[in-house]
Amino acid sequence: MSRSAEVICVGTELLLGEVLNSNAQFLGQELARLGIAHFHQTVVGDNPTRIKRAIALACQRSQLLIFTGGLGPTPDDLTTETLADFFQAPLVNHPEILEDIARKFAQGNREPSPSNDKQALLPEGAQVLPNPIGSAPGIIWHPHPELTIFTFPGVPKEFHRMWQETAVPYLQLTDWVTAQIYSRVLRFWGIPESTLADQVAPLLALTNPTVAPYASKGQARLRISTRATSQETAYQVITPIEQQIRQICGLNCFGADDETLESIVGNLLQQRGETLAVAESCTGGGLGQRLTGVSGSSTYFLGGVISYANSAKRDLLKVNTADLEQYGAVSAIVAEQMAAGVRSQLRSTWGIGITGIAGPEGGTETKPVGLVYIGLSGPQGTQSFEYQISPLRGRDWVRQMSTSHALDRLRRQLLAEQP
Amino acid sequence: MSRSAEVICVGTELLLGEVLNSNAQFLGQELARLGIAHFHQTVVGDNPTRIKRAIALACQRSQLLIFTGGLGPTPDDLTTETLADFFQAPLVNHPEILEDIARKFAQGNREPSPSNDKQALLPEGAQVLPNPIGSAPGIIWHPHPELTIFTFPGVPKEFHRMWQETAVPYLQLTDWVTAQIYSRVLRFWGIPESTLADQVAPLLALTNPTVAPYASKGQARLRISTRATSQETAYQVITPIEQQIRQICGLNCFGADDETLESIVGNLLQQRGETLAVAESCTGGGLGQRLTGVSGSSTYFLGGVISYANSAKRDLLKVNTADLEQYGAVSAIVAEQMAAGVRSQLRSTWGIGITGIAGPEGGTETKPVGLVYIGLSGPQGTQSFEYQISPLRGRDWVRQMSTSHALDRLRRQLLAEQP
Repeated sequence: MSRSAEVICVGTELLLGEVLNSNAQFLGQELARLGIAHFHQTVVGDNPTRIKRAIALACQRSQLLIFTGGLGPTPDDLTTETLADFFQAPLVNHPEILEDIARKFAQGNREPSPSNDKQALLPEGAQVLPNPIGSAPGIIWHPHPELTIFTFPGVPKEFHRMWQETAVPYLQLTDWVTAQIYSRVLRFWGIPESTLADQVAPLLALTNPTVAPYASKGQARLRISTRATSQETAYQVITPIEQQIRQICGLNCFGADDETLESIVGNLLQQRGETLAVAESCTGGGLGQRLTGVSGSSTYFLGGVISYANSAKRDLLKVNTADLEQYGAVSAIVAEQMAAGVRSQLRSTWGIGITGIAGPEGGTETKPVGLVYIGLSGPQGTQSFEYQISPLRGRDWVRQMSTSHALDRLRRQLLAEQP
Repeated sequence: MSRSAEVICVGTELLLGEVLNSNAQFLGQELARLGIAHFHQTVVGDNPTRIKRAIALACQRSQLLIFTGGLGPTPDDLTTETLADFFQAPLVNHPEILEDIARKFAQGNREPSPSNDKQALLPEGAQVLPNPIGSAPGIIWHPHPELTIFTFPGVPKEFHRMWQETAVPYLQLTDWVTAQIYSRVLRFWGIPESTLADQVAPLLALTNPTVAPYASKGQARLRISTRATSQETAYQVITPIEQQIRQICGLNCFGADDETLESIVGNLLQQRGETLAVAESCTGGGLGQRLTGVSGSSTYFLGGVISYANSAKRDLLKVNTADLEQYGAVSAIVAEQMAAGVRSQLRSTWGIGITGIAGPEGGTETKPVGLVYIGLSGPQGTQSFEYQISPLRGRDWVRQMSTSHALDRLRRQLLAEQP
């Protein structure tokens, strides 16, 4: 019989949007990693009737119920007693829990209050799932042999430690964890998700590994996943498909998993012993920020100029005044002069210049919002690229896309030009 | 009869934890604000059987079903067709949707692919809920008179705009919305949440309006809320309390609602007709990016220098080589010379310099990770400020806090010095 886990997050604060439900995401990742099927997540408020209905429904379709939240000392923390009530189990006092709470409180010069008493009451037959850092312990409970229930506090830090230190080892000793799911995410730039999906259409029908497209922040991705008993056997299934995709997509695939355009560009520069400087107008420092977000970037990134005003383009980058007047600050020639200028000022191997109209104001008939020029200057000369970024998603989007296009241009150039 | 809304988020990527479900939080906040009861949130994967079961369950207990996700062009986007199937409504082609997609794609020099076709198919009787920025429209649909269904794409930016621009006005015309909750958020810098809560302690006990403290990204906030039938009556309750808080907290309160440190600094500079230039080392352009994130910033922000390498500090900012050697790049004197240097290079009224150790590498006994110097140079001279930012939250945190401290220093200086 195929079994599955189900996540039930308890707390009116979640329904009110006061708290972002990062616990559900964490559990999603963890269950996927452990290869435990998981088809439903439910959020329910601090209401015993609705909590009971959620339990009843979950019991019908899942064999492992994971609760987060509702374990605190206040009257609206109802998870434990509602579970006991639903399964008609008496609550049993565990004095060792209160002793543990008193010990922890003493470290912060606090004393337990009478409201903590109820945290020591667990359904008969439940094991304590210890909380190493907070007051609320959870439970591991089999109300009947075919059902496993975990409860965790809602505080993410406490929940994460309890999950990793107790729940995962427990599950690994059971037949819940046999094979795990291993994934590789391929990342693309310069190709929209729908075109990518069309290019690799036959692969999207595979069942092992599965290949699924998705997109975020203008970046298309393909996730290749398989269920396996070890990473090694997983990669034997994943790698041939990855190679096939890389073959089909060529340079549009820029990296995998945690790699970013800036980390890839950084690696290439580092391998070649080359350096980079940037001149930014409409992005105002965003490209430099992305590049320096990579720890260790000081080995290849020298710095740059934020040439927001034309005076800065002239004085710090030696952009030609006549060209600025004739072609305007947003032009191919100015992007090239910015790139060449910052390269020469900072004596770097490569220089990037970005000038464009981020909007929402400042667009004209011939130079609409979203028009961006990227200048790229290197050992073999200086060139520029024109982009029309959709202005619909706003100023931040235009700026973010501009820095990505700039990094991608340099990446393609580095891969094309042998050092 | 009391009615309620229910949120159903569709997407295997949510169950796998690949995406944080911020849409559920957004809807929680919005429904609370609009005074719409909301007791259940469900996450379900891209599986028609399970989506149908979720619909069936939701119909039994809620009268307004809000779906997010599953409206994209790929085969695993199933929300629309599954809803149509469940309510046995035929799908009807809306050619105007494809035309709209083609128009939007053209602005980014793209063309729709055949996979976009299905985004034009909506259940018979459903109204188009237009998507102003992305390809996927949603629907407003009454499969029967007592049930309202909204669908939205999962992309938060698109969803938020569609919600605000179409769904909320639609709901306000119905009896779903009577009184709303109105809030004003006061924003603070330079004071921790706990100290702030102590300072305004008596106000936290108020019942109308309520005053609640919270904190995010190092910024303490106070939310003043009241339930009212119009914004005008709400502000009659909120404004006196706001004034009281501003009186108590003085300069630590920097703004309200959508205001940011960079927008406030921008307003002050604009009012005074003054200009700013920045010199950034450890923040690598992040301060410039924040300043230029404000539309219209070109009237007061001239630009700056990203002086990541020491050579850039020397060549572009005229930082003294002997001082760099004697005191190190992370020192008060270098921060001051960076601020004064960029101010003189760009001939601005004000100059800011930031130098520090963002980590995780690079810290020493005497200069640990998180040590940051802010230089501030203006008409009345140049000074510097030392900060020790906690390194525990990582490199991005140190960099983010550094730019906030820099903006706050300039803000306080502008408010202290009459022009």
